[in-house]
Amino acid sequence: MSLLVTGTVGIDTVITPQGRADDVLGGSAVYFTLAAAAFTPVRLVAVVGDDFPDTFRSALTSDRIDLAGLERRAGSKTFRWTGKYLENMNERQTLRTDLNVIAEAPPVIPDPFKDSTVVFLANTHPALQLGMRRQVPDARLVVCDTMDLWINAERDALRETLAAVDGVVINDSEAVLLTGQSDVITAGRGVLKMGPKFAVIKKGAHGAVLVTADGVTAIPAFPSEAVKDPTGAGDSFAGGMLGYLAACESFDYAALRRALVRATVVASFTIEDFSVRRLQALTRDELDGRVAEFTKMLTID
Amino acid sequence: MSLLVTGTVGIDTVITPQGRADDVLGGSAVYFTLAAAAFTPVRLVAVVGDDFPDTFRSALTSDRIDLAGLERRAGSKTFRWTGKYLENMNERQTLRTDLNVIAEAPPVIPDPFKDSTVVFLANTHPALQLGMRRQVPDARLVVCDTMDLWINAERDALRETLAAVDGVVINDSEAVLLTGQSDVITAGRGVLKMGPKFAVIKKGAHGAVLVTADGVTAIPAFPSEAVKDPTGAGDSFAGGMLGYLAACESFDYAALRRALVRATVVASFTIEDFSVRRLQALTRDELDGRVAEFTKMLTID
Repeated sequence: MSLLVTGTVGIDTVITPQGRADDVLGGSAVYFTLAAAAFTPVRLVAVVGDDFPDTFRSALTSDRIDLAGLERRAGSKTFRWTGKYLENMNERQTLRTDLNVIAEAPPVIPDPFKDSTVVFLANTHPALQLGMRRQVPDARLVVCDTMDLWINAERDALRETLAAVDGVVINDSEAVLLTGQSDVITAGRGVLKMGPKFAVIKKGAHGAVLVTADGVTAIPAFPSEAVKDPTGAGDSFAGGMLGYLAACESFDYAALRRALVRATVVASFTIEDFSVRRLQALTRDELDGRVAEFTKMLTID
Repeated sequence: MSLLVTGTVGIDTVITPQGRADDVLGGSAVYFTLAAAAFTPVRLVAVVGDDFPDTFRSALTSDRIDLAGLERRAGSKTFRWTGKYLENMNERQTLRTDLNVIAEAPPVIPDPFKDSTVVFLANTHPALQLGMRRQVPDARLVVCDTMDLWINAERDALRETLAAVDGVVINDSEAVLLTGQSDVITAGRGVLKMGPKFAVIKKGAHGAVLVTADGVTAIPAFPSEAVKDPTGAGDSFAGGMLGYLAACESFDYAALRRALVRATVVASFTIEDFSVRRLQALTRDELDGRVAEFTKMLTID
């Protein structure tokens, strides 16, 4: 099954208690793509400015990543984000955001990508997500993310987008804000009433919860003490999830549960180094080894 | 194996978003005892005042609970606590505490109890915990709880107690405060350096983490939407854990992992109603059924 992602490709500056990284590769679609590519080929749709370094494009170049939808727009500047993580790594402050090319016309989905089977709409204005979703009418599994800004300011547009997707992967605080339910499982059920068939609610260092009509699965985060930079954990979680689903060609509850494990494990690698360094160095053996370790930890008796 | 618990037996008033309960049975030793008694006989050591209602003593009366160590002290008043939970149920405010008999001489461990094999020292002044621990010199597994008050005000005494126990069961915020480590697993390892062979760190609605020299196990809370009153969740968690360990007569890593599941499940029942109502009504079939359900949820693939 073909997997398509649309989202941001940007230049990040990140400060954490473990150090800092200046002007490094970042963006939701980047983390998603590198994580998903561990399982299946990925089609990337995004737009950058003409200041986007060739080395960053090289970092995304692989026989499993199709960059035909990565537009380099002349006269525009690449999206930039600067953030700082506090001591507990579960909280962050955005110090600066330069939308740049993100505030201009959205990227175009190349015609050969329009037959994609699995689609991830990373966080952006819900009307843009809906426009993208309509360009892949035959997709069998469309999943979106969102954020507090759209939940607060564009609720009607977001509800229209939610009615047009099959699943959501969002943070716990977003699920609570979206549904008005303080319990994440109840919030997940509230999301299902808006259209999606499944909701995955990410709780950062506290794991994630999958809510479907067939059941609820809660899992912890992979126990890790080597956190250097949590940036991209959520997007690579989504990438691991959809990459696995596209590869196994099944979207039933059992497949979603297995995908949840892969998502958790991929995200646990992402946060071990700044930017995409650890994801780029990740081997299939390391990934499979940690999936086996995590599955064994959860299997009690 | 015989199991002994020392802690508070009190009268609680609890307000939650789901309602309130006035002057109901509470206290750490009460929740621990009722939870542990689901697995094994329990010896209770605590002191109450002469205002302690007969109906509360009746609520603890069972052929699995030995009340020979429950002293009713003439002229004294029973410990009282009034608390309120905020909307998300993971935060609470203490509105009032009347130590009463807790501020007087501690209870005495009856001679027939001094051969106990497994001992839980619920939260109290660490010097009192150490005194109790020394009265059961042959115990094979001694586990304690503590709280921020003692970590801040009685650190030396607490370190002495920690050096004399085999395990701790504490909250995440307490583990962080005790060790200065913001990551709970690193904090758990910090606790091991103080003496105990295992640390269980409770994260409320986010589950728990077991840290030992043999490995780390993180598990989520049982997915529950029926939370009425979180009071006693942590103490019944400890009761489920030690009750199971005493019943299975093993304290190795595999047994601790199985105990973690039982602890989580018992606590998930506790919070479904005010005071000890749900624990009192709990049947062995319900308990075993939810243990099986939780184990199945965690077994992926």
